Amino acid sequence: MAAPITEETLKVSYEQLTDLEKEFEENEVEIIRHQVALNKPLYEKRAKILSQLNGFWALVLEQAPPEVDQYIQPSDSAVLLSSLKDLTVSHFEIENGGKGDPRSISIKLEFNENDYFEDAVLEKKFWYRRAKSGWAGLVSEPVPIKWKKPGKDLTQGLLDLVVKVWEEDKKRGPGKGPITKAKDYTPAQKELKKKIETVGMGGVSFFGWFGFRGFPISEEESRAATEKEKENRRLRAEGKPVPDDEEEEEDDEDEDDDPYGLEIFPDGDELAIAISEDLWPSAIKYFTSAQEQGDMSDIDFEDGMDEGDEVEEDEEEEEAAVSKEPPAKKRKA
Amino acid sequence: MAAPITEETLKVSYEQLTDLEKEFEENEVEIIRHQVALNKPLYEKRAKILSQLNGFWALVLEQAPPEVDQYIQPSDSAVLLSSLKDLTVSHFEIENGGKGDPRSISIKLEFNENDYFEDAVLEKKFWYRRAKSGWAGLVSEPVPIKWKKPGKDLTQGLLDLVVKVWEEDKKRGPGKGPITKAKDYTPAQKELKKKIETVGMGGVSFFGWFGFRGFPISEEESRAATEKEKENRRLRAEGKPVPDDEEEEEDDEDEDDDPYGLEIFPDGDELAIAISEDLWPSAIKYFTSAQEQGDMSDIDFEDGMDEGDEVEEDEEEEEAAVSKEPPAKKRKA
Repeated sequence: MAAPITEETLKVSYEQLTDLEKEFEENEVEIIRHQVALNKPLYEKRAKILSQLNGFWALVLEQAPPEVDQYIQPSDSAVLLSSLKDLTVSHFEIENGGKGDPRSISIKLEFNENDYFEDAVLEKKFWYRRAKSGWAGLVSEPVPIKWKKPGKDLTQGLLDLVVKVWEEDKKRGPGKGPITKAKDYTPAQKELKKKIETVGMGGVSFFGWFGFRGFPISEEESRAATEKEKENRRLRAEGKPVPDDEEEEEDDEDEDDDPYGLEIFPDGDELAIAISEDLWPSAIKYFTSAQEQGDMSDIDFEDGMDEGDEVEEDEEEEEAAVSKEPPAKKRKA
Repeated sequence: MAAPITEETLKVSYEQLTDLEKEFEENEVEIIRHQVALNKPLYEKRAKILSQLNGFWALVLEQAPPEVDQYIQPSDSAVLLSSLKDLTVSHFEIENGGKGDPRSISIKLEFNENDYFEDAVLEKKFWYRRAKSGWAGLVSEPVPIKWKKPGKDLTQGLLDLVVKVWEEDKKRGPGKGPITKAKDYTPAQKELKKKIETVGMGGVSFFGWFGFRGFPISEEESRAATEKEKENRRLRAEGKPVPDDEEEEEDDEDEDDDPYGLEIFPDGDELAIAISEDLWPSAIKYFTSAQEQGDMSDIDFEDGMDEGDEVEEDEEEEEAAVSKEPPAKKRKA
């Protein structure tokens, strides 16, 4: 019979457990590095084949799992279906022999000429960073979009304001993070805060994703935090005492501080992970699965499509029988 | 604007796409092989640490994600909590320098003395096999359990019957698969079929999982199918014609044929994958996540527990605030 786990048993091993997890994480990073290198020629081969299939990525986005699909509004679909030409994920910190973190990713969308924006390429980069608090994950920078007219701005001005605030932050000089307390907000930040409340978090465009910033962690902070974590782990492994960090406490206690207060797309990192770890490697599966269901017309019709093209309107009535899952692999009893 | 994808465009590239997917799959197998080798010393280290934490695996099973948890009935929980001593996943075909498939897995459960069965170890092996139809996945063999009394048989006789049918199949000689047409069933098969209908698929015990067989694919069939698939892929890459296989058609057309008709645990392969790809690598996360929620008493109380022990009954009223997810990584706006 299992003895109940007591607080005491746990105190002995809690840090052992988290340190062990860190060792697994280091292995995982090596495995991603290996995987990226091994698959590189295949992804290049795939890109060549897919370039012959116009509309491939738009269809894949339409067939995407909920983790991606939930962020695509009908008006976004119209733009993506009519003009998305290509999508590429790269692990840019380890490209061309780089020694960076293989978890940092760049997601590049290429577009044909369209009515909405001037940009032929929108590239969003995510850096894997560690904060001194221990949090680790993806952070990013806003990517401006040149809307053709204010009425064509799918984010209803949100993205422009995020870019404006970001420019202000940069002018404040290196080493100074963004202002994260509402009482200290600049006029642009106040305007952004108000717009976030007006436009509402529920219906933000997919293109709002280009405004995601995440926790403000500089490369220097991340490097220092990573080194300190390793050093502390080494000390614990050798049975030596680990110094307390007094500085951190102050920051954590300030309740006014809200680094996510001006985020227009709070799940931006999760969407990036869903694209790079699911949509990107499984793109052909999503595509062929749609084809195997025999629904060839799905790419032709979509609510909110406002481009004049050869869509047969009758088909809109047709049942969209496309499964979002791979075909059942077996019959069940 | 994206041109609509036509049937013609697809016919050109459909096989190119599936062949490319096969190349990615080959890389993935290499990556798993690398990962298993790299993590081996860490898993050994982890096993040593976890052996100091009585009840670790029982608690992890309790905190398991729905893909595992849904198969654990309250009566199973009682047995697992009171007697599960250890759980180990191994990639047995590549252990000790083996050159087999790293996707084949063995899941070994070790038990303390208990009131239900004699076995101290129950080990379930899953082989990764490819059928000539193209299907590929995990197949297994029934693992008998020595119940102490018929009343202690958590599967209500299902597992014993599966084992009986399997023994009959083996006596029929190699090369002959199991009988899969209801009209040809042996008396034992008929009895099993009837019991499956009586006991019902909804409430089958977790221990019924040890009866999972999956598609009857021999090692020889799998090897031949894998070689043929590679050969066909090579021919297509060289632009040569690929011979049709006429034999297959006959099999596929027989509607009486139901290889899953006598399966007592049809999702057995999916449960194995959930254990080996989620529960096993993330066990410490599930464990510490439960601890961080401050609910230490969860392991002490469980519906259906019938062992006399030191559980304080009052605690049963306590709110089970244990989250099945890792702690939120950030505040949202």
